[in-house]
Amino acid sequence: MSSDRTRSWWGWGWEQQALPDAECVGFGALLPGLRDAPRPVPRIADLDLRAPRVAPPAALADRCSTDPADRAAHAQGKAYRDVVRALRGRIDHPPDVVARPRSEQDVVDLLDWAAGAGVAVIPFGGGSSVVGGVEYRGGEHGAALALDTSALDRVLEVDAVSQAARIQAGAFGPGLEGQLREHGLTLRHFPQSFEFSTLGGWLATRAGGHFATVETHVDDLVESLRTVTPIGISSSWRLPGSGAGPSPDRLFLGSEGALGVITEAWMRVRPRPDRRASASVRFDDFDRGLDAVRALAQSGLRPANCRLLDPGEAQLSGAGDGQASVLVLGFEAFGVAVDERLALALELAADHGGTVPERPAGADGGARDAAAEAWRATFLRMPYVRDGLARMGAIVETFETATTWDRIHDLCRDLRGALDAAIADVCGAPGLVNCRLTHVYPDGAAPYFTVIAPARPDAELESWDAIKVAVGEVLVSHEATITHHHAVGRDHRPWYDRQRPEPFAAALRAAKRELDPAAILNPGVLIG
Amino acid sequence: MSSDRTRSWWGWGWEQQALPDAECVGFGALLPGLRDAPRPVPRIADLDLRAPRVAPPAALADRCSTDPADRAAHAQGKAYRDVVRALRGRIDHPPDVVARPRSEQDVVDLLDWAAGAGVAVIPFGGGSSVVGGVEYRGGEHGAALALDTSALDRVLEVDAVSQAARIQAGAFGPGLEGQLREHGLTLRHFPQSFEFSTLGGWLATRAGGHFATVETHVDDLVESLRTVTPIGISSSWRLPGSGAGPSPDRLFLGSEGALGVITEAWMRVRPRPDRRASASVRFDDFDRGLDAVRALAQSGLRPANCRLLDPGEAQLSGAGDGQASVLVLGFEAFGVAVDERLALALELAADHGGTVPERPAGADGGARDAAAEAWRATFLRMPYVRDGLARMGAIVETFETATTWDRIHDLCRDLRGALDAAIADVCGAPGLVNCRLTHVYPDGAAPYFTVIAPARPDAELESWDAIKVAVGEVLVSHEATITHHHAVGRDHRPWYDRQRPEPFAAALRAAKRELDPAAILNPGVLIG
Repeated sequence: MSSDRTRSWWGWGWEQQALPDAECVGFGALLPGLRDAPRPVPRIADLDLRAPRVAPPAALADRCSTDPADRAAHAQGKAYRDVVRALRGRIDHPPDVVARPRSEQDVVDLLDWAAGAGVAVIPFGGGSSVVGGVEYRGGEHGAALALDTSALDRVLEVDAVSQAARIQAGAFGPGLEGQLREHGLTLRHFPQSFEFSTLGGWLATRAGGHFATVETHVDDLVESLRTVTPIGISSSWRLPGSGAGPSPDRLFLGSEGALGVITEAWMRVRPRPDRRASASVRFDDFDRGLDAVRALAQSGLRPANCRLLDPGEAQLSGAGDGQASVLVLGFEAFGVAVDERLALALELAADHGGTVPERPAGADGGARDAAAEAWRATFLRMPYVRDGLARMGAIVETFETATTWDRIHDLCRDLRGALDAAIADVCGAPGLVNCRLTHVYPDGAAPYFTVIAPARPDAELESWDAIKVAVGEVLVSHEATITHHHAVGRDHRPWYDRQRPEPFAAALRAAKRELDPAAILNPGVLIG
Repeated sequence: MSSDRTRSWWGWGWEQQALPDAECVGFGALLPGLRDAPRPVPRIADLDLRAPRVAPPAALADRCSTDPADRAAHAQGKAYRDVVRALRGRIDHPPDVVARPRSEQDVVDLLDWAAGAGVAVIPFGGGSSVVGGVEYRGGEHGAALALDTSALDRVLEVDAVSQAARIQAGAFGPGLEGQLREHGLTLRHFPQSFEFSTLGGWLATRAGGHFATVETHVDDLVESLRTVTPIGISSSWRLPGSGAGPSPDRLFLGSEGALGVITEAWMRVRPRPDRRASASVRFDDFDRGLDAVRALAQSGLRPANCRLLDPGEAQLSGAGDGQASVLVLGFEAFGVAVDERLALALELAADHGGTVPERPAGADGGARDAAAEAWRATFLRMPYVRDGLARMGAIVETFETATTWDRIHDLCRDLRGALDAAIADVCGAPGLVNCRLTHVYPDGAAPYFTVIAPARPDAELESWDAIKVAVGEVLVSHEATITHHHAVGRDHRPWYDRQRPEPFAAALRAAKRELDPAAILNPGVLIG
């Protein structure tokens, strides 16, 4: 990390990149009913943090901090409701201690201490959870420890022959890509939070990444895992494939810190792509765009990027004029041409009513497609805009799901209907609802919605919570997942509990009791 | 199934396709030291089966059988050691009852009855296990029930839009493909046992299938699962992708009947491929072939077939002359040309010293490559040959593993060394050891070995067991999996137990106690 930048404790990313007040006002003009001026940025000094209820373990005191700024920055994630609370100076559940282990043995020792002392342990990577994944909300533990893995940030080994690298869980996106670049390799996992999230966080939450098709989740890039549980270290063998019983790694992938602390993984890496081709396609009708994307997903052409933006989303991101849907398409490879695949994809898109550029931009080595570039820039900037809009009194949040192609039209229609009704009901005015597909599969896709609405003054949390309930009920009624890649955390529990099969839930609870007998690991997440 | 064919109770496949005596003698000439004439085929009438120790449940009596032929056919799998025992008239552990449920409710009722009566339940699909997966070897249960799912054999629903089908677990390969063909669709999962194994068996054992790259295991084709456990039915939602907690399906995939009975699944299907291209490449040096295959696996070209045969394996299968290794390459797609991909693959192979045909056979729609065809025919015939050789007194068995590319040369070398030494030791004469790669990945591959050796008379089991121990020890010492796609069953337990991380094993045991509190499900498999 550069020394002239500071991580924001209350909002997204770098403090220095937060929107200036004037820009907040500018974005505030997006919809009527917002404030005239942004709420002020909150200050640590104004917080009234509860005093720590436990002293750090003596042997690990130099890895621990009870500094208010540290505690505030580890108190919650980066969901809209987290930002709103921080803007009000509300830190509901500060951890008593923040620990930064410097070795796996430190992690073992911290868990041992916590189990003995009855202290809850909240594994903490980049803290970018948008589902309440890093906020201890229980009451039964005497204290809570945030276990910040960021000092475990090295690429420990590279096996260039097998294209794999052993990476510590606390490595942030840019850090691990920087270390891999020295070997000409890349992980190519680029979630929106890339700059502010860690490998361990991605693995624990089954993050969705760069690739819109095939290897959509970080799960697919895992060769083996090392996880510290309270009863011992689980270390799987490096295997390209195996059929020996249920996959050990798949139990910990998605376990969100409730079964153990992932400390390192062998990850599948690859040479940096040297061939790229991209294009954007315009569709007058979103539903025809859906059909085109389905054809693409079922074609076996495997675009790396294949994101269909509805007119509002296209406009918001600068990829379109708001009159049509836009499909952003991209192919990439190393040592193998991709032009032909793009050409075939564009043929398919045209067959489904897409308006295709005469000459795709960014064919092998050329400049990139302008719409794709605009989309990408906005994609990375969006969380800062979210914070600015939150300061203007807007509700601004996203949610995502996945369903099969046969149900996607009805699901999207019902979600829009429920959103419009809920927004009108709780806000008393209409809002903006945009949709895009982030990942596509032969059998379905992952729609991602952005909601912007004018909150009733001082009722932002209640307003969003009511909208979220409306959304959750539609998802459950369609048997669409409560999350495709944002994880469950605490905020998605009510719907997750209805989604997962009850015998599986019973098995998971039994596994938890076995691995975490003192019930200290991220209590309230997934289980209990 | 055709009415003029009978399933063999003692050996592979159809009774009518077993090798005639003269062919057994012919194959017996493969290596010195075998018998002059084959052992006779055993007869049910000669078996001395223990009387059933329990009466079938009255309400389900019409689904149950205690017929000796039924019990013998469900007493064990189809490993070499199973065939040898059957040839000797040894049925060590016949189930007391064979049940054929006609509905999911029947499965529920059978489990309820068994839990109450303390009867072990052995889920049984096609019975093609080569790892002791369907043979009850415990002692603590009062009786054992083979739960044969073959009456649950329907494709229940087809969603052509999402390219998915809901299929009952008892459907055999030809039966389910036949039903899908009516819709122009195919699952394209073709394990060697295809004709004699079921969807449920594939899922419970994480079977390896048709595709040599990417979608190597049946796991990758699963959209959702339905599993009857003793505490209730676990039914996951149809989702193309999800990040909601650890995958529920991945707990049951590979659970080998120890956690529940899989009754149906939504599977990802696809149009039948209309473009194919194939070729075979000759390598004078197996290690250069390995390097070529690695380059191919890392190229992103994704051949459907990519099987490297060593000289002995190539000769045995008729794909080569025994002087060189042969790489059998194939591409397939629907609606998209594959010639270009084959051409690129052949370029890569040539770069690594492969001798490439001037004009590949079987380019888009043409005839198939002769070596590939020969290999495929032998691949399907091989288990019958195995039985014939077993009758001639040969040890003839296979094993498979997977490891990363950086270790594959050393692993294969050490396996050959250990095999040669063990065969010399236990057989007093050399044997044949062939190797091929069945599945390849960017980070490694799955080597598959065939062992043929002259057993000491009447010591076949002990001889093979000793060789298997030698193999297992090499695999563990290299941290190579004890099975890539043959499953664990009972025969692989000693090495599986050393392979899986102990905290994961503890979690799995806890899940088992929760889901199967009476411990009736496939006791001894994976756990306990």
